[in-house]
Amino acid sequence: MPSIRVELLPGRTNDQKRAFAEAVTRESVRILNCVPEDVEIIYTEVSRDDWAVAGKLLSDPKGD
Amino acid sequence: MPSIRVELLPGRTNDQKRAFAEAVTRESVRILNCVPEDVEIIYTEVSRDDWAVAGKLLSDPKGD
Amino acid sequence: MPSIRVELLPGRTNDQKRAFAEAVTRESVRILNCVPEDVEIIYTEVSRDDWAVAGKLLSDPKGD
Amino acid sequence: MPSIRVELLPGRTNDQKRAFAEAVTRESVRILNCVPEDVEIIYTEVSRDDWAVAGKLLSDPKGD
Amino acid sequence: MPSIRVELLPGRTNDQKRAFAEAVTRESVRILNCVPEDVEIIYTEVSRDDWAVAGKLLSDPKGD
Amino acid sequence: MPSIRVELLPGRTNDQKRAFAEAVTRESVRILNCVPEDVEIIYTEVSRDDWAVAGKLLSDPKGD
Repeated sequence: MPSIRVELLPGRTNDQKRAFAEAVTRESVRILNCVPEDVEIIYTEVSRDDWAVAGKLLSDPKGD
Repeated sequence: MPSIRVELLPGRTNDQKRAFAEAVTRESVRILNCVPEDVEIIYTEVSRDDWAVAGKLLSDPKGD
Repeated sequence: MPSIRVELLPGRTNDQKRAFAEAVTRESVRILNCVPEDVEIIYTEVSRDDWAVAGKLLSDPKGD
Repeated sequence: MPSIRVELLPGRTNDQKRAFAEAVTRESVRILNCVPEDVEIIYTEVSRDDWAVAGKLLSDPKGD
Repeated sequence: MPSIRVELLPGRTNDQKRAFAEAVTRESVRILNCVPEDVEIIYTEVSRDDWAVAGKLLSDPKGD
Repeated sequence: MPSIRVELLPGRTNDQKRAFAEAVTRESVRILNCVPEDVEIIYTEVSRDDWAVAGKLLSDPKGD
């Protein structure tokens, strides 16, 4: 607690995922007053074919 | 807002995903009174091995 | 299948939720080739205090 | 109803997933008083690179 | 790991939620070979107004 | 993108939620190279009756 889910586009390295997990955990401890062991983060990579905004897939060319 | 997640079996084409995103966005605007840019849809494909109903995996032969 | 989750701001009536469920189910059948009985939709109302974009809660006054 | 999502590390066999779905469905019927056909379970396998606890990826060597 | 989410209709008692959590944890240990401390379960109660199947809200009278 | 969900125990103030959203957005921009407007965070408060670890509800007295 907190249990955090992060949906993001593919392409981030393990170093980025580790650094982001470290930062979010540090800020959870600082702001939400929990202990690091209680902070769980799960990343889900979502391809541009599977992510739509305003009725368009992110993989669609702009201006379509 | 709305933020929509769609879990579905594999096999739909990008054309189907695009057409469904267009339709759901149009209906969100019409019925839920939001603007297209606020409608986010994420598809998650779930294999039949990972989807169970009534205690059976969808990949199990019928009648098992 | 599909199993759909809709996060949205509070304030929609049951009539709107019913109409949106009908429309999304109809479009699932038409575009994703499934049967109505397989379409499950769950709404989650999220208060503006609990929804943040660009680091601001939606309940924060604009321009803050 | 209930609709259940299970996030777990990769490596379980279909037999384990089937057995767990059977057990969870049986316990849903026994304890939550529902019928087997109403129990839906979706598994999501999460790699150790995508799962962090206490600011560390599960794929990181211990003691890092 | 596993991290489990259970969406269900309102009305179960804490005793039922505790008994179901005990049963699911026991079966996770037995079948998925994990330790009890790794099994996290979160319940989300979903009202019948917010749950739709086949385009109908569960709160709608049957036969509508 | 990223789209972030935070499940946490009740009791945090709007100031804490705002500060955490600011921090997570800042770190998303810094580490994941996205723009603030793309960072969406939704909080879900989960009562101790609805959160179980190792087969016990968090609302259960310790040592039960």
